[in-house]
Amino acid sequence: MPYFISGVTADHNDLVARQPSEFKKLNDVDVLTRHRALGIDAANHTVRIADLEGGSEFDAHYTRLLISTGARAFVPPLDGASLEGVFTIRRLADSIRIKKFVKDRHPTRAVIVGAGPIGMEMCESFRGIGLEVTLLEMSEQVMPFMDADMAARVQARLEEEGVNCMLGQGLTGIEGDPSGSVKSVGTGGGSIAADIVLLGIGVRPESDLGAQAGVELGARGALRIDGHMKTNVPDVYAAGDCATTTHAITGTETWIPLGSTSRKQGRAAADNMFGADVEFRGVQGTAVVKCFDLTVGRTGLDEREAAAAGFEPTSVDIEAESLHEYYPGRGAMFLRLVADRPTGRLLGAQIVGEMSSVAEKRLDVLSVAISARMSADDLQYLDLAYAPPYSTAIDTPIIAGNVLASKLQGKICSCTGAGLD
Amino acid sequence: MPYFISGVTADHNDLVARQPSEFKKLNDVDVLTRHRALGIDAANHTVRIADLEGGSEFDAHYTRLLISTGARAFVPPLDGASLEGVFTIRRLADSIRIKKFVKDRHPTRAVIVGAGPIGMEMCESFRGIGLEVTLLEMSEQVMPFMDADMAARVQARLEEEGVNCMLGQGLTGIEGDPSGSVKSVGTGGGSIAADIVLLGIGVRPESDLGAQAGVELGARGALRIDGHMKTNVPDVYAAGDCATTTHAITGTETWIPLGSTSRKQGRAAADNMFGADVEFRGVQGTAVVKCFDLTVGRTGLDEREAAAAGFEPTSVDIEAESLHEYYPGRGAMFLRLVADRPTGRLLGAQIVGEMSSVAEKRLDVLSVAISARMSADDLQYLDLAYAPPYSTAIDTPIIAGNVLASKLQGKICSCTGAGLD
Repeated sequence: MPYFISGVTADHNDLVARQPSEFKKLNDVDVLTRHRALGIDAANHTVRIADLEGGSEFDAHYTRLLISTGARAFVPPLDGASLEGVFTIRRLADSIRIKKFVKDRHPTRAVIVGAGPIGMEMCESFRGIGLEVTLLEMSEQVMPFMDADMAARVQARLEEEGVNCMLGQGLTGIEGDPSGSVKSVGTGGGSIAADIVLLGIGVRPESDLGAQAGVELGARGALRIDGHMKTNVPDVYAAGDCATTTHAITGTETWIPLGSTSRKQGRAAADNMFGADVEFRGVQGTAVVKCFDLTVGRTGLDEREAAAAGFEPTSVDIEAESLHEYYPGRGAMFLRLVADRPTGRLLGAQIVGEMSSVAEKRLDVLSVAISARMSADDLQYLDLAYAPPYSTAIDTPIIAGNVLASKLQGKICSCTGAGLD
Repeated sequence: MPYFISGVTADHNDLVARQPSEFKKLNDVDVLTRHRALGIDAANHTVRIADLEGGSEFDAHYTRLLISTGARAFVPPLDGASLEGVFTIRRLADSIRIKKFVKDRHPTRAVIVGAGPIGMEMCESFRGIGLEVTLLEMSEQVMPFMDADMAARVQARLEEEGVNCMLGQGLTGIEGDPSGSVKSVGTGGGSIAADIVLLGIGVRPESDLGAQAGVELGARGALRIDGHMKTNVPDVYAAGDCATTTHAITGTETWIPLGSTSRKQGRAAADNMFGADVEFRGVQGTAVVKCFDLTVGRTGLDEREAAAAGFEPTSVDIEAESLHEYYPGRGAMFLRLVADRPTGRLLGAQIVGEMSSVAEKRLDVLSVAISARMSADDLQYLDLAYAPPYSTAIDTPIIAGNVLASKLQGKICSCTGAGLD
């Protein structure tokens, strides 16, 4: 949706993965739009449904039921949150409203609250249409899911792109003018004039429907499911942003709502609901965001999380170019690789790279290696695809494996990978 | 070097990874250039060396010796192979000679013999400087390391780019004019006029020096080494294009000379020669080539190789776009994934994609998955990095895992991945 607002994506209809009519045509699935599920009667295996257009109510029977109600944007309990010009961005209608507001009202000063992935994408989107942008973030860094020094690289780029970063500042209020439009945003550090405000301070699982039917809640209040996507209520499954999942490395229940995970959970739920025995193995916290011309991503655990999970983390930093000097179009990337010192097992990676560095390739390679419980040694001998247009003769993950293996063997190693490619 | 010839790389000095002086400065290594190793006296641990400039000869003592003599271009035993305008491309000097020949002699008609990776790169290079190009290949397809139908996709693109592909035609002779310059190339199907000829019909290991010292030869006549890079001769190691390696999937000795493997073997050899115990685990046949705006690559085994190695191969084909429709710059790719039917173990992958599809990312993901002995099921639940600028919500390897898992479970599945992203 940020790309639709900035015009990178021209038509909002392209954002709809599949129309209701296609569900019918491709899978013989009836999709009821403009209907609301009011409640689940688990004992009788029925769902009470309201037809929002016709006004009637009726019961639908189920053999097995999937709750995939998703998540909703968190809106702080402030009076000003309902002023005109204050938005969240979660549903397609949100982005259409934002785009219309920009077109009709010509805002020039935007405040984005929250420096997570949505905030990053919206910085780029709003700068792309020429707005002045202030980014307000309560923690002391942008991108709270990255290590602070990695995040500082992102912050520097945001500032180069003209984004005014206000860190360590909480949102204390939103003020409006007499017409009911937003005028300014209050922070601990003073008031910021704003014509448009975007709240990107997280989402909450839509678990009310399930909870009312007796589904137990788990991490962050999401619907608790097992590896088969089953809740504690017989014949009721849940999947997607409303449901918990398992962290594949720590084994703990977690809630990391992402579109990629939703797809995988949905598939596993469908298989199990129709009689197969499919276990979804959880996630390892992989995420990536484009922030202007930077790629920012992570997978697995950072050192703090690794220590909390009982590992003895150590890490190496690699600064590398994606291609040899002689081939055009290369980009720089900065990679941190975390491993367990006694065993050498890879635990996590963070990367910040120029878009041209194809940092996401290196992140995915490391994600698979971590998932496979590979060690630093394993990484050194990966047979990755080399030709000059694609990588250096040994690619960044292998260099990281070399440096990490040396460090684990206790060799003095102050290098950052420079000259190793 | 093909990129230097076409001007993509401006300065041939950029192709030199490290100057002799840098070896001295960074590692205190003395590099003797313009010296030739004449012979090894393994009993006395000496190498006889000729100073090609000074004319003198001397013996150098070693505690441990590494033979890394590389490979040489194969030149067929034809009289015309030494005519002016007939080139191989293996050493830096070759590309400088080719570039000078093009500049001085203004050839307009090029014949490239051999449709392997070098031939592909040289088609792009020669077309890039405006030459008419005929590609002559003895087998019935370009890119003999790809399945025939995958190669046909590459051939179609070559032909769109104006390359005249003559397949199933062996080189029978090279004719010159009275001045000693190449005039034409003879094939079973007739003669082709040529102002410049590039022979890209493979390389041979430079194993003579080692063989004379008693080193046993292995696959394709390369110096046979074990996992520690040791030859059968005490204290003599070998690494790189002159040495054999092990195929990590089949366990058999093989010879697949590639720069990426050389780097890894060299590192392992150095570690072992200095007392560490490091095993190089071999290769799995990963390779990638840019052919105009196509990325063409493979890893692991094809179905024929898998059957020969005792597996029961099955495969799925996936045609996918790299990004969702709404995000600009996506590219199409065609992926074939091979697995062992009884166990589901992934054995190999081949991919042909537009450069914009970042097909090499998907190839590397699959390379790691194969290396980790993952199954179709494992592939389905990889936690890859998703955001709209980088992939579809579930990326091509995961889609391939979905389709392959369905096929292995005996579900009817005629889909090629369309609509699954």
